[in-house]
Amino acid sequence: KSGVDPAAFSLWKSKSTSCGVFFFLQMGWGDVGAFGEPSKETPNLDQMASEGMLFLDFYTANPLCSPSRAALLTGRLPVRNGFYTTNAHARNAYTPQDIVGGIPDSELLLPELLKKAGYVSKIIGKWHLGHRPQFHPLKHGFDEWFGSPNCHFGPFDNRELPNIPVYRDWEMIGRYYEDFRIDRKTGEANLTQTYLQEALDFISKQQASQQPFFLYWAIDATHAPVYASKQFLGTSQRGLYGDAVREIDDSVGKILKHLQKLGISENTFVFFTSDNGAALISAPEEGGSNGPFLCGKETTFEGGMREPAIAWWPGHIPAGGVSHQLGNVMDLFTTSLSLAGLQPPSDRQIDGIDLLPAILQGKLIDRPIFYYRGNEMMAVRVGIYKAHYWTWSNSWEEYSKGINFCPGQNVSGVTTHTKEEHTTLPLLFHLGRDPGEKYPLSFASDEYQRAMQWISGVVQQHKATMLPGVPQLNVCDKAVMNWSPPGCEKLGKCLKPPKSDPKKCFWPH
Amino acid sequence: KSGVDPAAFSLWKSKSTSCGVFFFLQMGWGDVGAFGEPSKETPNLDQMASEGMLFLDFYTANPLCSPSRAALLTGRLPVRNGFYTTNAHARNAYTPQDIVGGIPDSELLLPELLKKAGYVSKIIGKWHLGHRPQFHPLKHGFDEWFGSPNCHFGPFDNRELPNIPVYRDWEMIGRYYEDFRIDRKTGEANLTQTYLQEALDFISKQQASQQPFFLYWAIDATHAPVYASKQFLGTSQRGLYGDAVREIDDSVGKILKHLQKLGISENTFVFFTSDNGAALISAPEEGGSNGPFLCGKETTFEGGMREPAIAWWPGHIPAGGVSHQLGNVMDLFTTSLSLAGLQPPSDRQIDGIDLLPAILQGKLIDRPIFYYRGNEMMAVRVGIYKAHYWTWSNSWEEYSKGINFCPGQNVSGVTTHTKEEHTTLPLLFHLGRDPGEKYPLSFASDEYQRAMQWISGVVQQHKATMLPGVPQLNVCDKAVMNWSPPGCEKLGKCLKPPKSDPKKCFWPH
Repeated sequence: KSGVDPAAFSLWKSKSTSCGVFFFLQMGWGDVGAFGEPSKETPNLDQMASEGMLFLDFYTANPLCSPSRAALLTGRLPVRNGFYTTNAHARNAYTPQDIVGGIPDSELLLPELLKKAGYVSKIIGKWHLGHRPQFHPLKHGFDEWFGSPNCHFGPFDNRELPNIPVYRDWEMIGRYYEDFRIDRKTGEANLTQTYLQEALDFISKQQASQQPFFLYWAIDATHAPVYASKQFLGTSQRGLYGDAVREIDDSVGKILKHLQKLGISENTFVFFTSDNGAALISAPEEGGSNGPFLCGKETTFEGGMREPAIAWWPGHIPAGGVSHQLGNVMDLFTTSLSLAGLQPPSDRQIDGIDLLPAILQGKLIDRPIFYYRGNEMMAVRVGIYKAHYWTWSNSWEEYSKGINFCPGQNVSGVTTHTKEEHTTLPLLFHLGRDPGEKYPLSFASDEYQRAMQWISGVVQQHKATMLPGVPQLNVCDKAVMNWSPPGCEKLGKCLKPPKSDPKKCFWPH
Repeated sequence: KSGVDPAAFSLWKSKSTSCGVFFFLQMGWGDVGAFGEPSKETPNLDQMASEGMLFLDFYTANPLCSPSRAALLTGRLPVRNGFYTTNAHARNAYTPQDIVGGIPDSELLLPELLKKAGYVSKIIGKWHLGHRPQFHPLKHGFDEWFGSPNCHFGPFDNRELPNIPVYRDWEMIGRYYEDFRIDRKTGEANLTQTYLQEALDFISKQQASQQPFFLYWAIDATHAPVYASKQFLGTSQRGLYGDAVREIDDSVGKILKHLQKLGISENTFVFFTSDNGAALISAPEEGGSNGPFLCGKETTFEGGMREPAIAWWPGHIPAGGVSHQLGNVMDLFTTSLSLAGLQPPSDRQIDGIDLLPAILQGKLIDRPIFYYRGNEMMAVRVGIYKAHYWTWSNSWEEYSKGINFCPGQNVSGVTTHTKEEHTTLPLLFHLGRDPGEKYPLSFASDEYQRAMQWISGVVQQHKATMLPGVPQLNVCDKAVMNWSPPGCEKLGKCLKPPKSDPKKCFWPH
């Protein structure tokens, strides 16, 4: 969408620019030292920031994992690419084992497009865009895969629920808890080390073959159930969650050093961010911190969607830079294409923008951030202002069971437990003066009038041109679970599925 | 208290080590970019941090201004040096204009002691240790003063309340709002620029005369009513408060550069910190941020007393260091004496410790942090644990009037509006896993038992040896206000005091 200055363009056009995206799970804005975590236990991420650029106003496309990942890889809002539900109004949805849907064939994924420029793509970690055969990542552009289709929940009994499979490329090579151990008592698991080694090996192989690559390192040690390998257990002030963060931090450092050792750091664009805010429901043992922001995962408050974000590309990105560009994980789609000299598809609405002018030339591109919960636009950020058209943390019913997305926080009229409509008179916040969304502007103020006039125009245009995709997260069926993934025969790990019984998925939040 | 390795000692013993303490007003942990403020508008403080050492577990001695300042300059808890009240239990108190008390002659202040090593001391900004003649800073060891005895509240009518005087050394040279303008409508005031120039001039003069100096730069632009000079107005994303922070940040940068330009940065120890947490009661227009911590000024939660802190001493302090040493503003007393080759007084209890082993050798010294509110020890931190023996935000009566020290925050059973005693079974928090004090440990857990055994011993010893000082903040009298400060005759600014009518001060919080 936004052009790039030709001089800067030639910088990376003249070489084959590889592109490693790091995309972590569930780490909040306040979990990284450079972003203010008070234990400062992320020296590698902090160094990455000091050598690269911090994005302070960077967002995910959804407060939940699957839709955010679908948005990153398609450059499109979940409401367009189908990663949402219409079973109920404004409900979060994702891809548990019984989900029938997944990423539609009609969607064009980043690795699919990068092929045109000769890129080899690998996903390491959680895919989460559907686990049935037609949704397999290697059917959507990835050349290699090591990881799982769903979250590492478990252990399960393989009767009511199968344990989640771990794939190498087309076939499963085992299951979590059975072949890939996670000790729920001690929190010990070697998975992050395994994922790290996969990344180092892939990078070495690509460097040797001189082929540009796209590495999508989507690991999940900080998603409950949280784990870390033995050498990291007990090393953090922050408990097991902090141990997991420290291991991820250490891994990032090793990957960056590996790029430097191989002499390809100057043509590898690296980005670190997260798919949703810290899951405060799991805090403090298994959930992180969103710093000064309100609430967390599952909500459209800043804590649910504002993410730590660091861009790193030695020799191109000025060291120690800080950007206030409003960014979104969907921009990684468009930016990666731009790095590869490709245009985004023109036959569909792409929400991601090319961040290179912001990264390389310090430009500020005017663009809004939309905060969706399922089928509803709950809020929008335009400039420094954020307007809530709907507020909802979760229902009284869920809250009374102890499900609390805003522990210790309570902003009257804002963190509401009934779904409140404000479409005629949105709640407006100035995120510079009030990053914690505690002080709505007075409806009668000139500032409110001026800002809402601006915002209303943006929203009106957004809604007028919005064509929602076919919702993929409406139907659930226990028969579609990971009973017999490809490769299960060789391992003797095929399980017998129950009779098909499709019904509407239940999404309580 | 803690010795210094002789090798390191000689480093600064061999030169005359000057000592500039920066001590700011009301800036919270979350107000500095390096500590996670999401607008990142403090490039100079962030650079100071990258060239020096961040203290992540640094505290003030009281959640209010006057007692903290008394503690810094005496190295003693307010309950010892008299900066507290016994008018009611666990009440915050400070030095408004009608206070009768002030710093007792029996207290030994840092500048008084530094004289023995030939130091020249100057205070720039707010004194706040009593405004009656016997409490004048030049009677307590300072050689120079430019600033005011009280907060810059106003404008007043000079009948019910006199405007606060501004002193140069022994005599007043004008009053706030009259001779030193603060525009309450626009927030414009040139005071920080004036205070900056005073600092630069003093440093130049001392460098020329080759005399070591102690500069106590206690400015107050971020205390309500917040102000900034014209060139900074409107420059922050954060509104007027942010403008004030930016001007302070700019001033810090100019002072550090001045030290470097004069070639004395390697023998000047500089420390930046704050006297209490951000005043959330004044947020967002005139109050800052305490980042991920609970509540703010006036409370003994982390937001009230954990402070941003940076030590800077090029050539001595390793650049980019981070320390988890539990520190306190009282340590600046003992550390400064140590830098000057002096011992702290041995005839009284000193609470501050020498931080040089932590700063120069990365040692961690085991010491507790006590959180007092008036005459009561509300909480204690030992290691990573914090135990609340009493909890109180403020009374229902005050709260119902809109006085809220924890806006948007509400931790059930913790941010209580009735004063709750927990002395037999303290509320215990693990500040590593839970820096926001949201999840008290279970009383039945082994961890609780183990930690409380440790903490109880520390508290028992503290209480057994505690000899409270004579409370200075009990009596108020309108007759003692700044009606006729020394020098008022020359200016024609003497005002007629009302008849003396001493009574107990009323401290609502």
